[in-house]
Amino acid sequence: MTDTLIKVDLTKSPTENEMIHNRWHPDIPMACWVKPGDDFILETFDWTGGFIKNNDSADDVRDIDLTTVHYLSGPVGVKGAEPGDLLVVDLLDIGAKPDSLWGFNGFFSKKNGGGFLTDHFPQAQKSIWDFHGMFTSSRHVPGVQFAGLIHPGLIGCLPDKKMLDLWNERETAFIATDPDRVPALACPPFAATAHMGKMTGEAKAKAAAEGARTVPPREHGGNCDIKDLSRGSKIYFPVYVDGAGLSVGDLHFSQGDGEITFCGAIEMAGWVHMKVSLIKGGMAKYGIKNPIFKPSPITPHYNDYIIFEGISVDEHGQQHYLDVHVAYRQACLNAIEYLKKFGYSGAQAHSILGTAPVQGHISGVVDIPNACATLWLPTQIFDFDINPSAAGPVKYLDGSIDMPLSPDL
Amino acid sequence: MTDTLIKVDLTKSPTENEMIHNRWHPDIPMACWVKPGDDFILETFDWTGGFIKNNDSADDVRDIDLTTVHYLSGPVGVKGAEPGDLLVVDLLDIGAKPDSLWGFNGFFSKKNGGGFLTDHFPQAQKSIWDFHGMFTSSRHVPGVQFAGLIHPGLIGCLPDKKMLDLWNERETAFIATDPDRVPALACPPFAATAHMGKMTGEAKAKAAAEGARTVPPREHGGNCDIKDLSRGSKIYFPVYVDGAGLSVGDLHFSQGDGEITFCGAIEMAGWVHMKVSLIKGGMAKYGIKNPIFKPSPITPHYNDYIIFEGISVDEHGQQHYLDVHVAYRQACLNAIEYLKKFGYSGAQAHSILGTAPVQGHISGVVDIPNACATLWLPTQIFDFDINPSAAGPVKYLDGSIDMPLSPDL
Amino acid sequence: MTDTLIKVDLTKSPTENEMIHNRWHPDIPMACWVKPGDDFILETFDWTGGFIKNNDSADDVRDIDLTTVHYLSGPVGVKGAEPGDLLVVDLLDIGAKPDSLWGFNGFFSKKNGGGFLTDHFPQAQKSIWDFHGMFTSSRHVPGVQFAGLIHPGLIGCLPDKKMLDLWNERETAFIATDPDRVPALACPPFAATAHMGKMTGEAKAKAAAEGARTVPPREHGGNCDIKDLSRGSKIYFPVYVDGAGLSVGDLHFSQGDGEITFCGAIEMAGWVHMKVSLIKGGMAKYGIKNPIFKPSPITPHYNDYIIFEGISVDEHGQQHYLDVHVAYRQACLNAIEYLKKFGYSGAQAHSILGTAPVQGHISGVVDIPNACATLWLPTQIFDFDINPSAAGPVKYLDGSIDMPLSPDL
Amino acid sequence: MTDTLIKVDLTKSPTENEMIHNRWHPDIPMACWVKPGDDFILETFDWTGGFIKNNDSADDVRDIDLTTVHYLSGPVGVKGAEPGDLLVVDLLDIGAKPDSLWGFNGFFSKKNGGGFLTDHFPQAQKSIWDFHGMFTSSRHVPGVQFAGLIHPGLIGCLPDKKMLDLWNERETAFIATDPDRVPALACPPFAATAHMGKMTGEAKAKAAAEGARTVPPREHGGNCDIKDLSRGSKIYFPVYVDGAGLSVGDLHFSQGDGEITFCGAIEMAGWVHMKVSLIKGGMAKYGIKNPIFKPSPITPHYNDYIIFEGISVDEHGQQHYLDVHVAYRQACLNAIEYLKKFGYSGAQAHSILGTAPVQGHISGVVDIPNACATLWLPTQIFDFDINPSAAGPVKYLDGSIDMPLSPDL
Repeated sequence: MTDTLIKVDLTKSPTENEMIHNRWHPDIPMACWVKPGDDFILETFDWTGGFIKNNDSADDVRDIDLTTVHYLSGPVGVKGAEPGDLLVVDLLDIGAKPDSLWGFNGFFSKKNGGGFLTDHFPQAQKSIWDFHGMFTSSRHVPGVQFAGLIHPGLIGCLPDKKMLDLWNERETAFIATDPDRVPALACPPFAATAHMGKMTGEAKAKAAAEGARTVPPREHGGNCDIKDLSRGSKIYFPVYVDGAGLSVGDLHFSQGDGEITFCGAIEMAGWVHMKVSLIKGGMAKYGIKNPIFKPSPITPHYNDYIIFEGISVDEHGQQHYLDVHVAYRQACLNAIEYLKKFGYSGAQAHSILGTAPVQGHISGVVDIPNACATLWLPTQIFDFDINPSAAGPVKYLDGSIDMPLSPDL
Repeated sequence: MTDTLIKVDLTKSPTENEMIHNRWHPDIPMACWVKPGDDFILETFDWTGGFIKNNDSADDVRDIDLTTVHYLSGPVGVKGAEPGDLLVVDLLDIGAKPDSLWGFNGFFSKKNGGGFLTDHFPQAQKSIWDFHGMFTSSRHVPGVQFAGLIHPGLIGCLPDKKMLDLWNERETAFIATDPDRVPALACPPFAATAHMGKMTGEAKAKAAAEGARTVPPREHGGNCDIKDLSRGSKIYFPVYVDGAGLSVGDLHFSQGDGEITFCGAIEMAGWVHMKVSLIKGGMAKYGIKNPIFKPSPITPHYNDYIIFEGISVDEHGQQHYLDVHVAYRQACLNAIEYLKKFGYSGAQAHSILGTAPVQGHISGVVDIPNACATLWLPTQIFDFDINPSAAGPVKYLDGSIDMPLSPDL
Repeated sequence: MTDTLIKVDLTKSPTENEMIHNRWHPDIPMACWVKPGDDFILETFDWTGGFIKNNDSADDVRDIDLTTVHYLSGPVGVKGAEPGDLLVVDLLDIGAKPDSLWGFNGFFSKKNGGGFLTDHFPQAQKSIWDFHGMFTSSRHVPGVQFAGLIHPGLIGCLPDKKMLDLWNERETAFIATDPDRVPALACPPFAATAHMGKMTGEAKAKAAAEGARTVPPREHGGNCDIKDLSRGSKIYFPVYVDGAGLSVGDLHFSQGDGEITFCGAIEMAGWVHMKVSLIKGGMAKYGIKNPIFKPSPITPHYNDYIIFEGISVDEHGQQHYLDVHVAYRQACLNAIEYLKKFGYSGAQAHSILGTAPVQGHISGVVDIPNACATLWLPTQIFDFDINPSAAGPVKYLDGSIDMPLSPDL
Repeated sequence: MTDTLIKVDLTKSPTENEMIHNRWHPDIPMACWVKPGDDFILETFDWTGGFIKNNDSADDVRDIDLTTVHYLSGPVGVKGAEPGDLLVVDLLDIGAKPDSLWGFNGFFSKKNGGGFLTDHFPQAQKSIWDFHGMFTSSRHVPGVQFAGLIHPGLIGCLPDKKMLDLWNERETAFIATDPDRVPALACPPFAATAHMGKMTGEAKAKAAAEGARTVPPREHGGNCDIKDLSRGSKIYFPVYVDGAGLSVGDLHFSQGDGEITFCGAIEMAGWVHMKVSLIKGGMAKYGIKNPIFKPSPITPHYNDYIIFEGISVDEHGQQHYLDVHVAYRQACLNAIEYLKKFGYSGAQAHSILGTAPVQGHISGVVDIPNACATLWLPTQIFDFDINPSAAGPVKYLDGSIDMPLSPDL
């Protein structure tokens, strides 16, 4: 039987667990060691460490201290791994914790985190998604259910000191270009809420002050929030330190491309069963700077879509130059307007785009001045016919159910 | 037998053909009329009207006058179509012209058009792709062949005067923010090379001076370059003028997401067999601003991929804020470096990403400050094993064959 | 431009064409020659050589002389091919003749051909299917349309004398076990209607008397009626004679597994674009007795099905031992009963199973005494919702349209 | 948290468990009751109740008493279910028991069970397959690994008395046609090893003497061994008795179409998470005689295949009339010969066809006298390139590892 090398107790704070950390730093000691060829299980908290609850209020989404995230399990040391290697990780399976068969999705208040559509949904909202075996549905978003595309939002190896310094310099300089922006441009190191695994005392204090925040994806992978890094996939990670130091967390039961709701996908506590091996010197052999991966052979295959186009003219009519971010936002807003015609509130429609396995494609990036992006909405996840017809849309929902909203205080 | 309503003669100039136009303007007369429920065939020139030749020199790519593009077939009037309707177009089939079973792909000189990777490939290059039934391969890019995902790069309905004015104002104002930029920020109206279908004399001169260029995708669809708008798909277009005025051109035998090579996909002359119908008042019924579509049930299904990640830190280490364009560029550059390890030149690798059915996904757009984009490279299109392994890459190509390059004069 | 090596004129009889034959015999002269690596086009008659017409009577289905089929184009000689080689055939593309964009499907009278469900549909019936680009629908079977899975029902190489003798002995002996059976057990050589390509005189008379009928699939492939041998697939054929002698015909626009309607799939005249190469000595190298093939990367991907089970207890309650034929018949009959609840006549339902890309799986063949077979009916080909629900089926069809029937005279 | 209504202890005999039974009889008391809309978990033994062990000897496969199988969990009563209803079962998830992460596959001796290829593999052999998350591989069959297509081999509702009598009469009469055949034609009731759930005393004795054996699939479904009845699928079962009485067992981690190895698929102990609902009067509404189902949206999608053809001329040259069983056997034998060229033993090749998600299609059933069947072997499950090439096969295996064999005593 496969060993569970890291266990988490959801009734306790993640900060009490020495095998959990919430910053990136090369000095964080390995939580445990494995050999190439080993397979093992790591349990994880949800990314907020249990702050968001299974209830019908969005107060927790509004009030969360975002300096505390993400609580990661690891780092796992891999014997023989050296800088320049590729660490090959097979995600053999991933699941929810049996005592926590639900997840949450929400939008942060614009004043506390914001998100992709924060100008349209500026206040905290939340939906709870229950897991029924391989499927999920929400009491706050009726009429939709789908199979999970279960994946870690965040996975990667420890940076070395040089990489860490690069990150901190790059992001600090960037913040300095507009330091008062709300939401902020980036998240600088913040010692007060840093949890550095087994570290204590001065060493911890020093590392906490330097430790990179876990929010952005970076060269090592990290918080990529790639929905297709799902159970069954095989990932090749750059190694920067001896032993590699693989950490994982922020598990998602499902997510749409872009994780546009930011808080987040369908966020859950769970476990990851993985196997590791090495390609010695693989970074140079294959010219690898960022991780590469091969997708899983076993994913939900919804293949009938309605596809929404967006171009890089924003919702105020402003022209942007080949801006895929703006174009994708328009495609998402177009899909939300469409879904409202069937009776969904804007928030519910937004939540579907953030949680269901929607695809976001970079469709055209050269036809000046407009980028074109497409949002692919799977039709087979709906309990009713969502296709356009000559007769026009039939309202499936009567508006009696909506997502909890917690206005800013 | 289905009627071919518009025919093109590839031995003649498109400007001699009254059923061809290369600008968007509501006054362009309908080239022909159909009824809802009709199916019919339109032949098309390649987007350059035959300027690029099937040879081994990139001089034509370097020297092309880009104010001449795109040569479109139409507009087709649909009886009963009124502003506010949705024109439903079934792309029943698409093919190359039997007397022209080849296509071209290339990169424009940075001084004449540029493109997504123009800083990395600043000079004109070209590859020729031959069609073998449903498949294509190139004498300039060995080791790769794939089934065509045949689609029109450009399709849409005529704008009304109000929409046209909006476009011209928006883009003219945008150009004014950096009028001397190379490549330009956008393409303003340009009468000298305008071909306005049947229009002549003063009416033509006036419309030519106002006609929107065909380069960018806009509210009506237009030059979206969406590879998945392929034969078999069903598109719902906003209608702005009586009769709709549907035009199509810029056919592609295949293309990767983003059409990153700009010149372009695998560009070809050909024909489109389509059927039209109407959803009366459909724009309001479904809240439609941009076209929506349903993908084809019959497309190449390569499902094994190597996926490359990119983040919005550019190739010079510069941080960008959730910039998917930058992130996708990094993913593409990462893929090019990888392919070079198997013996491809950078240009060949770039050409593969522009022509093969690669996917570009918007993977994460909320994890400040880094967007994450992924480039999905299908492995099954290669004649050799392109997967990473512990043994390292084996060079499949010896470098003896490369793509023609024509330095700027 | 690819050469069309064999042309057919649909206004003339196939027996006037020297590049057509309707028997298998090693002495049939090559109609033309190609080299390994060549690609070329062969035109074909429909399998009946034009006997079945695009009209609303099934008289032709009832009255056909089945000794005349199948009219094949070929044989094509491949230079260098020798007995024991594998002839690799890439089906680059297949299509209908532009002057014949329709096909037929029907059931033979039990007295003249019969078929899989002949006891349930003992009289001649016919449906005509029109082609709309890549799609088809029938004026005799409303409510259903689908993309074509275009393939040759019949393709293979000439037998040598030894193989031909084996076939004739085997089948003649088999007929002798029940010579008066209706329908017959097998089809013996029959000189009167044999068309032997270029052969004339005594040589022709001798070969016609010996030539194997084209009805059954045999060791060389032949009339396999495998729907997945579709355009884009790659086939490896055993070679028995110098030059291989590849012939092809009996093109189908679409077919369900089993070709249960026998007359047949959606039968059409058309053309095949193919490429040939050789694996020298491949039969021994790979232990090949029957052809093997790799499926096309570009086929219709309907992936939502209703699946019907059948076991080897027949419709009269009779037990059969692990008989997959009986089990599949039950699954088909079950599907027909189901479809009738939506308003289809039994004949229409039967026709759908014979023409649409239904799958027939051998699900269990060891659980004595019952085999289990499944019939997979794609739901996405219907214009209405065919799924079961608590509310029960809604009749979509009012019975006003049915398939032409021609009672036995 | 979902209730586990039936638990099994793998260290104990299934005959000690009152919620387990191994015969079909209407008098078997419900093991537990649920309501429509409920979801719940049932644990199951492997079909042999733990007789086959995880070791390197096939003695247990040789010596098993096949009158003891299959050990089923249930029957589960569903409140409100009545004869004529359809019981809708959603298989929400299925897995192996955490304390038993392995399965077995084997061939029975021809003298004790036999199987599809028993004349070619007449002696008992066994392979053990270990589960690594969603994947499996075997120490006895190197070079192959694949994702599980996890499904119950056996699931269905209790028959009523009339149905039970029909089965017994039908099969008893069938056995009488050749009572001494080895293997037997069918399995008659056999009281000695019957386990009738909670039944005791005379009632049990009577029911045991009448209870139908679980081996064949029948009208109610039962032992269909349909690989696509996998986790995520939705099944519609005929109801014959009040409360329906749903039982399930014989879980498979993976299986090929046909379950040609008979002992069996990859057989395992495990659990099924399911949800039930009702379509009142559904059998008549939809004309249902046997179960129907919809496949899962989440299954392994290996889509590159080598496809082997077989016709109904058997391995001795004997002609059979449209016999799909014979044709599929030839296709399987052809695949085994092919695999041997890469170094597999015949037994290993046979085991791959029985365990991996190979497809078996009924390709042609009308072309007298030959049926045509195809065996689809997925190429992506192999660690090496299994495709044919001009260079010929490369032996990947050196023959040092083979499957345990236990000759008849």
